[in-house]
Amino acid sequence: MFHTILWKNNTAEMIDQRKLPRMEEYFTAKNHQEMIYAIKEMVIRGAPAIGVAGAMGVALAALEIKANNFDSFLSQLKPLAHNISNARPTAVNLSWAVTKMLAFIDANKTDDIKTLTQKIIDESIRIGNEDVAINKKMGSNGATLIQNGDTILTHCNAGALATAGFGTALGVIYAAQEQGKKIKVFADETRPFLQGARLTAWELTKNGVDTTLISDNMAGHLMKKGLIHKVIVGADRIAANGDTANKIGTYTVAVLANRHKIPFFVAAPLSTIDIRTQNGEEIEIEERTPLEVTHIQGVPIAPEGIKVMNPAFDVTPSELITAIITEAGIIEKPFTDNIKRLFGK
Amino acid sequence: MFHTILWKNNTAEMIDQRKLPRMEEYFTAKNHQEMIYAIKEMVIRGAPAIGVAGAMGVALAALEIKANNFDSFLSQLKPLAHNISNARPTAVNLSWAVTKMLAFIDANKTDDIKTLTQKIIDESIRIGNEDVAINKKMGSNGATLIQNGDTILTHCNAGALATAGFGTALGVIYAAQEQGKKIKVFADETRPFLQGARLTAWELTKNGVDTTLISDNMAGHLMKKGLIHKVIVGADRIAANGDTANKIGTYTVAVLANRHKIPFFVAAPLSTIDIRTQNGEEIEIEERTPLEVTHIQGVPIAPEGIKVMNPAFDVTPSELITAIITEAGIIEKPFTDNIKRLFGK
Repeated sequence: MFHTILWKNNTAEMIDQRKLPRMEEYFTAKNHQEMIYAIKEMVIRGAPAIGVAGAMGVALAALEIKANNFDSFLSQLKPLAHNISNARPTAVNLSWAVTKMLAFIDANKTDDIKTLTQKIIDESIRIGNEDVAINKKMGSNGATLIQNGDTILTHCNAGALATAGFGTALGVIYAAQEQGKKIKVFADETRPFLQGARLTAWELTKNGVDTTLISDNMAGHLMKKGLIHKVIVGADRIAANGDTANKIGTYTVAVLANRHKIPFFVAAPLSTIDIRTQNGEEIEIEERTPLEVTHIQGVPIAPEGIKVMNPAFDVTPSELITAIITEAGIIEKPFTDNIKRLFGK
Repeated sequence: MFHTILWKNNTAEMIDQRKLPRMEEYFTAKNHQEMIYAIKEMVIRGAPAIGVAGAMGVALAALEIKANNFDSFLSQLKPLAHNISNARPTAVNLSWAVTKMLAFIDANKTDDIKTLTQKIIDESIRIGNEDVAINKKMGSNGATLIQNGDTILTHCNAGALATAGFGTALGVIYAAQEQGKKIKVFADETRPFLQGARLTAWELTKNGVDTTLISDNMAGHLMKKGLIHKVIVGADRIAANGDTANKIGTYTVAVLANRHKIPFFVAAPLSTIDIRTQNGEEIEIEERTPLEVTHIQGVPIAPEGIKVMNPAFDVTPSELITAIITEAGIIEKPFTDNIKRLFGK
């Protein structure tokens, strides 16, 4: 069908998400700098997907290095890994994956450089495959929360395109559908980058899910009319207390769901939970270029020179979240205790 | 500077709001059918503005009629007036203005047709001038609610462009600014038709107001950060109990303001209050073409054939409204009693 990211002949091939749904084109990162570009420019996006991209970025960096011994190799790799890790600030999966790769490298430091490099490549591929497996587990866990006949609202894209495959929030919907449940989905278009209109609407319909596209500001009206039964979204970073950073607009959806007593679920792998972050206040919110707001597909929609704010994420406080769906099960409240337990703290 | 709508040589000239801010072009309605087109296609929009357009539409219709006596004149005019009144369903100002014109015509039925026609034209011009005067009064009433240093969020365009001039919600901001108060404004872009990005950002900056454009889904995040002190919006129809139909997304802003204890004001002339409508449930919500959601300025942003919902308005229940600003003063709670009193019932 399509692949979000795939290792191929010592390069990483990604469907170019900037061009969807109008063109299905692939972008190839041939070195770690092209991978940083792909992450920054959102050729690839979605917390789990940029985690895999980060791991493959480390593999690309390893291929670029000329070194005779491990110390030389590691001293050259570290600054490149650091740059990959910092390509975008909010999703914790990126730094999680790079940290994981560095620990893997350290655990294999007795190998010769050629063997080590191949192991690094294999490990980055394994992280991608593992992400798909995690999503399928998450999907089957989350599907228990979905009833036949549910209409579900989702925001942004937390689907196959946001992961190595299958998806987090949309994975739950796919799993419920595979169980024979009839599901309808409302997809928020998700301004400014339009991940909902361009990506979620595209992959849901490709997967045969009954999907209706709406502007972000219509969700409240539909909830008031009783047309939405559940909300499921993904996450870019979940703090130790359950506060969740996700695509801008998620907080608004959560406030609306709360008013209408609609369950609000977050679906994310354990790698998105950052237990070193105490709460949402500590999460850095990326501010992106004003051009995303003033232009749509290159067409200006606002007066020239207008001031703009463009925070790419917001934080939903844990009180507004009904439960967090992970590959290890569904985390109920109280989140702080249950997250602590899950991480064995 | 610019004029929203102006009677000129037996035609009605309107700035073409579909083309702003990129082009300042005027559209001329030479007969009542072209006026219906202008209203339906949103060449002109905003409840008070389409009220004036409706009145001038009746004047255009009067000019088209060939009749020797009043009965013949009226029997020809009535169906045309009916069509004008039904060009768009939600804003009550349109039917209010047409009804007002028909009452005026009835009151002048002893005139010869030529004299009557000229009186009809003059009356439609008078309604336009009156709208500006009403807005200035509303502005000065509303400005008492605004403090120096306030940052105000507005949704859609309730400005000079939405009225015969000066504006309702933006009129309050202009009046406060004229009093020397320093005001900052956040303008929601207001998908799908982008009245905020295209019209509000344009007219506010033209009037020297410090304006920042945001996507609709960013307002919650900014409120949470404490960056918004007040919300002011316009209205398309206010029911007898204060429930207010306004541009889609207004309800969401009201829910967010309520959560953050931010005052939420509606600014509208008395002609927007429809005392025959008991509550918001009775207000017909216009559903517009899916193309407004799937395309932006003609550019597709969603997969071909995707299902869409496109309600043009939503209803904010009166409980979420702090006060209603009118030319007759500020209506406080309880709205039902205070509205009744205002209309002498």
